[in-house]
Amino acid sequence: QDAKAGRAKASAQCAVCHGMDGIAQLPTAANLAGQQEVYLVKALEDFRAGRRVNEMMTVVSKDLTDADIANLAAWYGSIKITVQLPAR
Amino acid sequence: QDAKAGRAKASAQCAVCHGMDGIAQLPTAANLAGQQEVYLVKALEDFRAGRRVNEMMTVVSKDLTDADIANLAAWYGSIKITVQLPAR
Repeated sequence: QDAKAGRAKASAQCAVCHGMDGIAQLPTAANLAGQQEVYLVKALEDFRAGRRVNEMMTVVSKDLTDADIANLAAWYGSIKITVQLPAR
Repeated sequence: QDAKAGRAKASAQCAVCHGMDGIAQLPTAANLAGQQEVYLVKALEDFRAGRRVNEMMTVVSKDLTDADIANLAAWYGSIKITVQLPAR
């Protein structure tokens, strides 16, 4: 995986909806920041194969290579997240 | 939505894999911390309806009510996340 190549690809194809930092720009898109790499690879493979369907992702995943998928997952997975629970 | 009810439900049914704080406990599970509420509702509805298939989620979503789904999405969505990009 090449997170830097993933960063470049994300900038071109993913960031409009998912944000360059993985914080989604619209409510129907998932935050991807710090998401598990294995999970992201599966999600993209499932969209590409039609096992998972989404108006936008079905289209944009179609032309991704296996390397693109690995790199994109490496990029978004490499963003560090810290969490803060709401007060009880 | 009742995030506190969602917290209780999450503790019983989701946290083993997704973490009480939404940080996944195993690589195939998604982090849910701070995930978009609209996205989480759709994900759970899709699993429940069989539009999205996953060995674990297909089973555990089956008995969720609409209120459970709204509450769980409110809980995980209410966790604040901050992101830090990797150094270039």
